[in-house]
Amino acid sequence: MTDTLTTIPTSTNEPIYYQTKRPTVAALEAILGDAIPVLDCGFIRIIDYMGDDSAVVQAARVSYGKGTTKVNADKALIAYLMRHNHTTPFEMCEIKLHIKAPIFVARQWMRHRAASINEYSARYSIVKDEFYMPAVEHLATQSKQDKQCRENKNQLSPAEAKEVLALLHNDAARCYTSYMTMLNIDEHSGDTLDPERLGLARELARINLNLSYYTQWYWKINLHNLMHFLKLRSHHHAQYEIRAYADKLLEVLELWVPQTNEAFRNYKVNGESLSANALAIIQQMLRGEKVDFATSGMSRREWNDMCSILGLAEMRQEQ
Amino acid sequence: MTDTLTTIPTSTNEPIYYQTKRPTVAALEAILGDAIPVLDCGFIRIIDYMGDDSAVVQAARVSYGKGTTKVNADKALIAYLMRHNHTTPFEMCEIKLHIKAPIFVARQWMRHRAASINEYSARYSIVKDEFYMPAVEHLATQSKQDKQCRENKNQLSPAEAKEVLALLHNDAARCYTSYMTMLNIDEHSGDTLDPERLGLARELARINLNLSYYTQWYWKINLHNLMHFLKLRSHHHAQYEIRAYADKLLEVLELWVPQTNEAFRNYKVNGESLSANALAIIQQMLRGEKVDFATSGMSRREWNDMCSILGLAEMRQEQ
Amino acid sequence: MTDTLTTIPTSTNEPIYYQTKRPTVAALEAILGDAIPVLDCGFIRIIDYMGDDSAVVQAARVSYGKGTTKVNADKALIAYLMRHNHTTPFEMCEIKLHIKAPIFVARQWMRHRAASINEYSARYSIVKDEFYMPAVEHLATQSKQDKQCRENKNQLSPAEAKEVLALLHNDAARCYTSYMTMLNIDEHSGDTLDPERLGLARELARINLNLSYYTQWYWKINLHNLMHFLKLRSHHHAQYEIRAYADKLLEVLELWVPQTNEAFRNYKVNGESLSANALAIIQQMLRGEKVDFATSGMSRREWNDMCSILGLAEMRQEQ
Amino acid sequence: MTDTLTTIPTSTNEPIYYQTKRPTVAALEAILGDAIPVLDCGFIRIIDYMGDDSAVVQAARVSYGKGTTKVNADKALIAYLMRHNHTTPFEMCEIKLHIKAPIFVARQWMRHRAASINEYSARYSIVKDEFYMPAVEHLATQSKQDKQCRENKNQLSPAEAKEVLALLHNDAARCYTSYMTMLNIDEHSGDTLDPERLGLARELARINLNLSYYTQWYWKINLHNLMHFLKLRSHHHAQYEIRAYADKLLEVLELWVPQTNEAFRNYKVNGESLSANALAIIQQMLRGEKVDFATSGMSRREWNDMCSILGLAEMRQEQ
Repeated sequence: MTDTLTTIPTSTNEPIYYQTKRPTVAALEAILGDAIPVLDCGFIRIIDYMGDDSAVVQAARVSYGKGTTKVNADKALIAYLMRHNHTTPFEMCEIKLHIKAPIFVARQWMRHRAASINEYSARYSIVKDEFYMPAVEHLATQSKQDKQCRENKNQLSPAEAKEVLALLHNDAARCYTSYMTMLNIDEHSGDTLDPERLGLARELARINLNLSYYTQWYWKINLHNLMHFLKLRSHHHAQYEIRAYADKLLEVLELWVPQTNEAFRNYKVNGESLSANALAIIQQMLRGEKVDFATSGMSRREWNDMCSILGLAEMRQEQ
Repeated sequence: MTDTLTTIPTSTNEPIYYQTKRPTVAALEAILGDAIPVLDCGFIRIIDYMGDDSAVVQAARVSYGKGTTKVNADKALIAYLMRHNHTTPFEMCEIKLHIKAPIFVARQWMRHRAASINEYSARYSIVKDEFYMPAVEHLATQSKQDKQCRENKNQLSPAEAKEVLALLHNDAARCYTSYMTMLNIDEHSGDTLDPERLGLARELARINLNLSYYTQWYWKINLHNLMHFLKLRSHHHAQYEIRAYADKLLEVLELWVPQTNEAFRNYKVNGESLSANALAIIQQMLRGEKVDFATSGMSRREWNDMCSILGLAEMRQEQ
Repeated sequence: MTDTLTTIPTSTNEPIYYQTKRPTVAALEAILGDAIPVLDCGFIRIIDYMGDDSAVVQAARVSYGKGTTKVNADKALIAYLMRHNHTTPFEMCEIKLHIKAPIFVARQWMRHRAASINEYSARYSIVKDEFYMPAVEHLATQSKQDKQCRENKNQLSPAEAKEVLALLHNDAARCYTSYMTMLNIDEHSGDTLDPERLGLARELARINLNLSYYTQWYWKINLHNLMHFLKLRSHHHAQYEIRAYADKLLEVLELWVPQTNEAFRNYKVNGESLSANALAIIQQMLRGEKVDFATSGMSRREWNDMCSILGLAEMRQEQ
Repeated sequence: MTDTLTTIPTSTNEPIYYQTKRPTVAALEAILGDAIPVLDCGFIRIIDYMGDDSAVVQAARVSYGKGTTKVNADKALIAYLMRHNHTTPFEMCEIKLHIKAPIFVARQWMRHRAASINEYSARYSIVKDEFYMPAVEHLATQSKQDKQCRENKNQLSPAEAKEVLALLHNDAARCYTSYMTMLNIDEHSGDTLDPERLGLARELARINLNLSYYTQWYWKINLHNLMHFLKLRSHHHAQYEIRAYADKLLEVLELWVPQTNEAFRNYKVNGESLSANALAIIQQMLRGEKVDFATSGMSRREWNDMCSILGLAEMRQEQ
């Protein structure tokens, strides 16, 4: 059975090396082709890459001309580009990944349009019996505060969790059994079930599968768009399951382009945007003036977010 | 229960009309806001549009200058643009639709990146109990010829079809029941099931739903990209279920931009691309020379496709 | 002569009004088709638009479902979307403009890729004798601080300015005379110069024109991408000449989508992004601790930018 | 003087080679970094690349699954993808080039939006005194047939050509002299002209330069979009000067991805699209029926284009 399914290509024991004049990143070469596990059955594999920190600098220097070469060291130039949103030099690096993730993650992922994608097609090929089962500690209730999120601190009771996992598991397994029945294939042996039948077309049978089933795709994206993806998908508002992938990709980023990664963390991931209103309030505070929620023009939630950013927990307003 | 779910906004009995200096298409105004049914529970609704055939002409004339105004009538100019792949003037029209379709259709749809999308979020809101059930006549076997398709002429036997529909229906219904159970909501009354429980977060419970469940989204796209979508998705290689939407959108196209639609049908939908090889063979035939599959440099399938295009069924090669 | 050149279509004295069910913005209808002057010979004309503030809200509500309708008023919802970079609902509005600007401005403008463009073609048509002449108050020296900018406060001396304007004017006029000579057209009468000659092809003759010559194009862009354009091009680092267009477009934005415009000004145009480093320093200051440039990890320029943002001029470091 | 200008980085005599596990193309490595001359002062340099023919196949196989591996050899698979417009696997390869070309070529080039660009900035840096001078054999008259083109067969008379070249040369040289004067720099020595003056800002002085002046940029694009660019810009309707670059890039394509290149030539560059009308006429002819321009529904030009494609010169209609 398995030989008709796509399996993870693993890097060979004896990798073949080629000679190249292209910029090469030893830390990525070391893991090229290896599957980095994510969730229970998923992975990220680096297939190829183009450029490194020096490629960002090189592209920026074409714009600036030689004159500024001596003034800015590479790292400072990268920080300058990041701080001033001069994003085009970051488009000069590219990475290609092989991703395996549940369909509901794939759906969020593919909303990012600025990337190239080739996905495993369940119209051509038979889907493997692999579906995502959340770990118990990730089974949490709906958040009251962030209406699209789960409330991480509020896990289901052990009894409730057990029941949920049983429902998820049994429904997925049963849907897969039906899927194979419709295809007229024996789920265990891979043999034809009824030689008199041809089975339902794959493109139709697969509509019975759950959103928890795994799919896989090649994903190619430039460094600028990758960082945009990572800023959004590593954010605590993102669903845990896609965040798990984003967190691994942040590690890949650090291996690939360490200087860009450092600037990205400082200015984008851990930085914050403040409104004109918020800046006016901060200026008042720094001048020692009293500030006041009521006259701030902010919603309670915006005010509280500002207090968090400024480390002023005592100023928070009760919801 | 239903009041917490998004329902189809229908156009009011007494539509409100505004005055505008913008180009206006009476045939679209007449159906603006109405749901055009597709599949068993889906629809297409036209929400807004910008431009008409004259907007294509207007944009082209900016490029060409006034000099050509008298030479080309509008219709001929549009045909000229279509024939020569001068695509940018077609970007000057825009349409916004509200689509309701099964998730597996949505996944194919959203692979088209050159559009704006806002989709119903099952992280925020509760999914309705609506899933796609194929009509019996669409239950066909896998095609031997086009490996990703169903073989339309080869329908399942009535017994097999009945079994398939039962599996699809029962699995979807059961998965929905589990979904509501995990959310701690009574499926029928919408009431809380167990007041002691908070229920699983929506973003997790929904992973139990099947790909046959309906979703909905706003979709905004320009005329050029819409035609690209329609060429691919109205093609007989496309899955029937998305083709059903493409076919309705072709009717919308005809109402919206009749001249563009006519050129699009002639040059793109019903036209064909021929390779240098194929053109050489056609030239031979037109000179009365004998042509030969063996020396054509074509695969059997490519040869047969050429024969179909040329209406020469007798020249087809056995597979 | 002039009848072979594209001239500005002006709105008729008696505009024709159509009836529509589409969202309509009275403030835009009032100026639809009128040329808004920019620089010495340029303009912005609004040709068409799709949607308004309510279209942003409508698209966001598809995502959120009905549940949140009562909680958030429209304006608060728009502010929420802007603050959290939920950008896709802003893609649901579209605007189409007719722009006339010097070629060097057009080159900066068209680096923004997320728009549709149809430009006047100097391969087809003859360019008019219109070039940009800067006003004396905009003739300034190169900035020492911002290496790509002019130093606005440091204008040229009257004598130097006079000389510069004479050079710009005479060179442009002479290049145009040569252009027409190469085309074999009398610059003043528009008649053929030498009936024995056919003249050089337009696509070649035009390479003699200066970057100060005016061109024109249709430009269609969605609201999200328009705001991105405006944030970058209304910034004081942008060249004055494109900023002049951005400033007019900010006025158009206010007429078109007043609520979006207000949020955009507060969060994006007049807001600031602060790095993790900067936030840590602000937190120290708010706790009354002493902060220090030397240990900040910032460049002098970044430190000074932070001081400006916080209104703490006294903390600036000498360059 | 020259040290403040960007000069062409040439590949070192002793190139440094790195070891990589990435797909490597020997034919490209051999010329990586070398300037391929185009026009009188322009060039194309290959800076980096990602993937090769096998990367296209690899991405397609992810979609199709293993099942089809044995059926299709790589070359046939690539031809299949090209023939059926399965374009996404071709997005999996990427190339980065350094281009130097006249500004009027750069303007046509940058209308292709699906690429990443970093251009030399004349706001930061001083433009070199390099402008395009057409060769005498490219000085032709405006075409009567293709209104945007020159008539290649109708060259200017030697006297007219000499005059045109003198105008182009003298105007460009004079504009450059004015440019340097406004910058307060001695054109020959690079010294400051008048120590009392600061000179006009670079962003303003450059507006005096002609469209024939050379600029340069980094250009990064995927294989699919590169082929789209090449199809349009190697077409005989494209201006000769950008076609000169496209022709060189077609040679690069052949070195980089020989199988893709072969399919691209057969199906796209040398293939043709035929309308439903044209196909009906061809079918008539192949059945030995008489066809007739008058009832074809085609314009004279479209009819004649069809005759050319079919090698039936005798059927052409007089214009």
